[in-house]
Amino acid sequence: MSSRDAVLRAAREQFSRKGYDAATVRAIAAEAGVDPSMINHHFGTKEQLFMAALESPVDPKDHVSAVLNGPREDVGERLVTRFLTVWDSPAGAAGVAVLRTAMQHEWSAALVREFILNRAIKPLLAGLGVPAEEASWRGNLVASQLSGLILTRYLVKLEPIASAPHAVVVRALGPTIQRYLTGAVGADHLGG
Amino acid sequence: MSSRDAVLRAAREQFSRKGYDAATVRAIAAEAGVDPSMINHHFGTKEQLFMAALESPVDPKDHVSAVLNGPREDVGERLVTRFLTVWDSPAGAAGVAVLRTAMQHEWSAALVREFILNRAIKPLLAGLGVPAEEASWRGNLVASQLSGLILTRYLVKLEPIASAPHAVVVRALGPTIQRYLTGAVGADHLGG
Repeated sequence: MSSRDAVLRAAREQFSRKGYDAATVRAIAAEAGVDPSMINHHFGTKEQLFMAALESPVDPKDHVSAVLNGPREDVGERLVTRFLTVWDSPAGAAGVAVLRTAMQHEWSAALVREFILNRAIKPLLAGLGVPAEEASWRGNLVASQLSGLILTRYLVKLEPIASAPHAVVVRALGPTIQRYLTGAVGADHLGG
Repeated sequence: MSSRDAVLRAAREQFSRKGYDAATVRAIAAEAGVDPSMINHHFGTKEQLFMAALESPVDPKDHVSAVLNGPREDVGERLVTRFLTVWDSPAGAAGVAVLRTAMQHEWSAALVREFILNRAIKPLLAGLGVPAEEASWRGNLVASQLSGLILTRYLVKLEPIASAPHAVVVRALGPTIQRYLTGAVGADHLGG
């Protein structure tokens, strides 16, 4: 195994077991038997190492900025629109392949979960100014609707949702996501 | 292979390829190399054969009646409440096992899809008097939210949604399901 592969393997193990925040480049380097400077040199930051471990062609950062850019009362519609645009692109087809793998490997499922929560949903909620104690609950609700959209539209391919034009899906799911992000969802009962 | 196993195998193949409605006991019997009367004798009706093929411990029929029994404006809350009660029961744990299998086998995924759409969602929408041309779209939307709930709460076990009390989940998801079942969801743009 090359040291690059050893680093990626150690990164997947640590990110999926400890989560993105608790995992450190130092510990990943130690597990891979390399110097931390080798990781910095070949992969860059912890974020970039995480992306490499996930082999994701999409960096959610740009999408989060775009979704935040506009009136607060339309953020649900913008999120669903952007989400459909990404998943219907060639990168989205790669994402579907990643998800199929993720369902078969524990580490991969954990990585995907960390990826979506930390790289997309948390920054979005922070950008909206959602209080930290509500962010987990609202983030879970958004994840529950959007993961179900991926499942029904892209994996199981239920009709008519698999072939529905973006505007139709946005009209149906936009208000749901809007309420989960900014509306009344009992967030006072579940913080953390 | 016993003739019982041959029937179950043929049933899975036909139900998943043709869908529940188009599959026939006669064709299943032909494929299994048995007489249709053998299927009637050992399994009962097409519905019962379908349940046997899915090895499901839950018959959704009783649950659909219970969800329909009450004010129309609270049907979303009743559906989410009932859904959580079933999935948090021992039968639900078996259901999670079925779903994990379903993700790995094409026929099983198709069976689960047919099971949920035909045995639970369609009868519910019919009971609510939803016009046939809106039923597929509304059913898909309900499936997108509830499949995402299963994914986040029971399979991926995201926190806090995995441990949230039923009342908290119902308060958040009840209005979503209510709108998908009876509210404005652009159903006029997508029938069939």
